[in-house]
Amino acid sequence: MPIVKGPQVFPRSEFLRRLAAVKTEMGRLEIDALVVENSSDITYLTGYTAKSGYVPQALVVSLAEEEPTFLLRRQDAPAAIHQTFLDPGKIIGYPEALIGNPDKDGFDAVIDFLHELGAAGRGVGVQLDCLSAKSARKFESRLPETRIVDCSHSVAWIRMIKSDLEIAIMRDAAAIADAGVLKAAEVIRPGVREADVMAEVAAQLARGAGGKAGTDLASMYFCSSPRTGTSHIRWSEDVIHDGSQINLEVGGVRHGYVSAIMRTFSVGTPSDRLRRIHDAEVAGLEAALGTVRPGAACSDVANAFYRTIEKFGFQKDSRCGYAIGIDWSEPTASLKNGDMTELKPNMTFHLMLGNWIEEDFGYVISETFRVADSGCEVLTKAPRKLYEL
Amino acid sequence: MPIVKGPQVFPRSEFLRRLAAVKTEMGRLEIDALVVENSSDITYLTGYTAKSGYVPQALVVSLAEEEPTFLLRRQDAPAAIHQTFLDPGKIIGYPEALIGNPDKDGFDAVIDFLHELGAAGRGVGVQLDCLSAKSARKFESRLPETRIVDCSHSVAWIRMIKSDLEIAIMRDAAAIADAGVLKAAEVIRPGVREADVMAEVAAQLARGAGGKAGTDLASMYFCSSPRTGTSHIRWSEDVIHDGSQINLEVGGVRHGYVSAIMRTFSVGTPSDRLRRIHDAEVAGLEAALGTVRPGAACSDVANAFYRTIEKFGFQKDSRCGYAIGIDWSEPTASLKNGDMTELKPNMTFHLMLGNWIEEDFGYVISETFRVADSGCEVLTKAPRKLYEL
Repeated sequence: MPIVKGPQVFPRSEFLRRLAAVKTEMGRLEIDALVVENSSDITYLTGYTAKSGYVPQALVVSLAEEEPTFLLRRQDAPAAIHQTFLDPGKIIGYPEALIGNPDKDGFDAVIDFLHELGAAGRGVGVQLDCLSAKSARKFESRLPETRIVDCSHSVAWIRMIKSDLEIAIMRDAAAIADAGVLKAAEVIRPGVREADVMAEVAAQLARGAGGKAGTDLASMYFCSSPRTGTSHIRWSEDVIHDGSQINLEVGGVRHGYVSAIMRTFSVGTPSDRLRRIHDAEVAGLEAALGTVRPGAACSDVANAFYRTIEKFGFQKDSRCGYAIGIDWSEPTASLKNGDMTELKPNMTFHLMLGNWIEEDFGYVISETFRVADSGCEVLTKAPRKLYEL
Repeated sequence: MPIVKGPQVFPRSEFLRRLAAVKTEMGRLEIDALVVENSSDITYLTGYTAKSGYVPQALVVSLAEEEPTFLLRRQDAPAAIHQTFLDPGKIIGYPEALIGNPDKDGFDAVIDFLHELGAAGRGVGVQLDCLSAKSARKFESRLPETRIVDCSHSVAWIRMIKSDLEIAIMRDAAAIADAGVLKAAEVIRPGVREADVMAEVAAQLARGAGGKAGTDLASMYFCSSPRTGTSHIRWSEDVIHDGSQINLEVGGVRHGYVSAIMRTFSVGTPSDRLRRIHDAEVAGLEAALGTVRPGAACSDVANAFYRTIEKFGFQKDSRCGYAIGIDWSEPTASLKNGDMTELKPNMTFHLMLGNWIEEDFGYVISETFRVADSGCEVLTKAPRKLYEL
């Protein structure tokens, strides 16, 4: 039996608006078809959030068609019919024989489709960033008459400015992230295994907040003493002890959208060094948020932070954050010195002020914010403090 | 202060043995250096499990050096020092200026290192499957005198046969996966939100089993009526109701190693259709496991399954599984008709018998198994039944 359409998070008009912006960009680039391989871009343009992107799949946007065509593994086609706004006729499942096959894969089905579409002799956009070298060569060799244009980040720049509907979802995601932080503060205690803390935090991130469930679990990091100088360790086998410091990074997820937050925890009285950097970083965070308004540049936000913590005698080597939305990190603007991207209303960023100062010492704090019409809306709301437990 | 070495899961001799096998293969391919970008291969060769692979990083194995050199983002270098067996001098953090920079990235640092190593004029292996088209072109253009050899799966084929130490860890991971299934059976009830079930399951997978914590959360899928014909949906916003069928896929993780399991649940009495396919699939599963022994081919295992379920009037389009180990799916052998890879002791597979028969109906069952000296050891042990709740 055919699978039914699931509840739709966004109305059809929202997807058509997004596609219209993509088609305008395609016109500018003089391409008739755009092959979208990036999973986050596919989520943006269709509503698809199932995790099938570990095998080839692509959404083909054609100037000649209102709806794009989604080519994916046959086994995953029912999920695409269920989750997306697309007409089921626009979803093409390629055969299982293309899985685990050294000679042909799903991109051969995509290229066959481009030939059927008549796009082969014209301009076609592909996302080279998402294609392995082997797959890119296949596109070139099987489409010899085609002018192939790299559109790696074309959709990412369009999705950088969120609609109010997307912002509402990111607010819900932020509330879930906040709940994760508060749960950590509740369960971090001497004698508790780190894994048991993260069990409770993960459960909270799935349960969600305000009656709205988490729809996925994003990456989470729990870097405790003596690992506070590291940034991407899930958690360790250690038991928490008196004197431990914990740097936590979690995200809440709703319908593919992520809002992220970092907070630092001290079991027992924090050291002077920890308290000093906390004070500096909170001052820097507030200075950075204070510069956020339409017309300012990403660089301004970062420099407000850098200048402030320098007054406290600190510095930070890494960038101060990045655009956030679908699947955590967007490959567009960075909050860093020299990034002159102009802030516009409804852009969203993870102001990520993790500061790994020495091999064995770091501190983290962050917020997810939206550029508002005249300033800044901070989406994450967990108390902006050094959590003493 | 320098970060201390963390507890090591494997002795140094284990890593040197793995590296010796890689170097033998490098000799066969006549390459002096191998650039390993695949995160799972890096875990295999060093013990590194932090999740920094979303920016460029590479392990460079040189025939001239006992230990390889790990080049990664400076911010992540302390985690590499802490987690790996490598001498800290073999870990090189590249500057933060290479992050979010459209002109240069971490692969430029890797290529600089290859020049320093004197490898530029000789044979160098790279993993084209892990490199975007842009990055592959960078290697070619910046190493014009170098004979570049694609080694995408060279390490994956070596790590396909596990050591007894690795098998012990995969047994622990399997016990965690089993605990996830049993937790699901405990909490799936009418009126419960799917997200609340997965909150409990995720928590169990982090807590672990037998006193051994989960060290990460692998992908998890909860595909319920009317979505049992889908395979990669995390979970939905629905509340479980009487008559629901649920297809669950989870993995337990220990130190980077995954063991996976699938089971099907029926809330209330299962339909005749569901019971018939369950009986067929269990018979097929047992027939497949019965063929596993050193010297048999992957194809034999798959065909034992296919032949058995055909007797029951069913068929399955997709392959019957794949090699499993670090990070779930290994890109080597598949359990499918025509894959003549010979089974050898301590190869491990996910015998994945998910069968998505109609758009709105599917059934799942799977086991993770090891090829034993004379037969098969099934690592996952949750009852092999249709769970009626």
